Order: sequence, then C-alpha cells, then structure tokens
Amino acid sequence: MQISHIEHVGIAVTSLDEAIPFYEKMLGFKCFAIEEVEDQHVRTAFFQVGQTKIELLEATSPESAIAKFIEKNGGRGGIQHVAFAVEDGVANALAEVQEKGGRVIDQAPRRGAEGLNIAFLHPKTTCGALLELCENPNK
Amino acid sequence: MQISHIEHVGIAVTSLDEAIPFYEKMLGFKCFAIEEVEDQHVRTAFFQVGQTKIELLEATSPESAIAKFIEKNGGRGGIQHVAFAVEDGVANALAEVQEKGGRVIDQAPRRGAEGLNIAFLHPKTTCGALLELCENPNK
Repeated sequence: MQISHIEHVGIAVTSLDEAIPFYEKMLGFKCFAIEEVEDQHVRTAFFQVGQTKIELLEATSPESAIAKFIEKNGGRGGIQHVAFAVEDGVANALAEVQEKGGRVIDQAPRRGAEGLNIAFLHPKTTCGALLELCENPNK
Repeated sequence: MQISHIEHVGIAVTSLDEAIPFYEKMLGFKCFAIEEVEDQHVRTAFFQVGQTKIELLEATSPESAIAKFIEKNGGRGGIQHVAFAVEDGVANALAEVQEKGGRVIDQAPRRGAEGLNIAFLHPKTTCGALLELCENPNK
C-alpha cells in the first residue's frame, strides 16, 4: 500500500465545549468544522495542523467506541487513533494486510467523518495502537 | 505560539523487535533510526510519514513513562503522545501556556530524542491527551 501522510490524529475528549477552547486559545489552532457521525455515535471537531488534522471526538451515546475508550482510560480523554492517508485505495490496503496475515476490524471500507472511506486495523496486528486507513473518494 | 505541523506521534510498544516489522512490512514505512534516550529510559525507532514521524517507544526500565503507560493500558502498547513543532521556541510556548492559566509537566525545555528541545503539557490542561511541544535547536 502507498501511504502519503498522516491524515488525522483522533483524540477522545469528554466535552468538545471544554476541549475546543484549549486547542484554539492555548495552541492557536482554528476549529474549521464540527460534524456529527451518527452511526459512530460521535461528534467531531477538526483543526488543520500542517498536513494533518486533529480530530476531537466526543461520544454522543454510551455505546460509542469513544465512550468505551474514556471509560477504560479512567474517565479521561486521550489519543485514540492515528489515520494514514492511503493513495491506492483502502480496499486494496485491507486485502494486502490480510494477505500478509494481519487482522482488520473492518472487512471493507465504510464512510467516516468528512466523507472519507475509512477502515480500522486490529490492534493485535498493529502491536497495540488503533490505526485507521483512509482515502478521500472525491480526490 | 506558532505551531507549524505535527513533528511526531509517539507510540508505546512492548517490543521494538515485534513492532518494527509491522510498520515496515504491512504499512511500507522504512525505519531510519533507532536511538536510546537514557534519561527517559526508552529505546526509540523512527519512521517518516509525510511531514510527521512515527516514534515507536520501548521501555528500557520499569521506571520509564512508557512502562507505566503500558501497565495502565493492560499490558498493551498504544498511542502515547503527539508532538507539535513550535516555530518560535519551546521556552516561549511554555511561558505562554502558563500565562494563560495552563499547566505544564516540564517548566523548561529538555533534550529529547534526535537532539530536539522538548517539553510536555499537563494532561489536566489538554483535556486528557499527552501533548509535547518541540523544536530543532539546529534549525
């Protein structure tokens, strides 16, 4: 697979309303979008930092992966995932990982925030980190 | 403060020897340096991904922050920190955070891997994520 850059870093927070001012006032970033992704039960806020976005994630339901991450993390936010931009297709990348004996969470790409095609690799394969592969289908 | 990009993402692993082959063989990255940072009790491996480096961190002692992170994480690796490249000096940035009421872990910049000047912000201020500020003193 061809990975060009880190598309975004996903950071779980207990409250976007508390976290956005930290990133804007302390670090000087500008929140350029807030979006709800219903099927993932999250509300997200985006900041561009060079080539990469910071994606803050707030759970909108206890069944959200973000709610579970925060619960496991003692009720605190933290860095939840890193997403790599794949140039030759997420479906190809998933097939390649599995051919090489790796495990994936998503067997096929699904729709994520900002209209990206996304898929997660299994942390057993990645040595622990939650890693996402993504592509912009309109590019 | 002026942040230009994400300098690196720090990922804790239980074993560099297990993790490096995943990043090289599955994701296609090339490890360009392995370095021991004695005062932080870690061994690190670096991969360049666009503007940003992936820094894998293996503990060399139980007193390492990486050993504690892995212990809290149920014995598994995971994404430990994100480091922002500051263009106008880490010392200035630390002063600015504190002037605005934020807390820092490092009162002054210290030497990190690759000879960077680094300092960590306190997770209480960042809404949970462990965030590092860094600069290349030779740039």
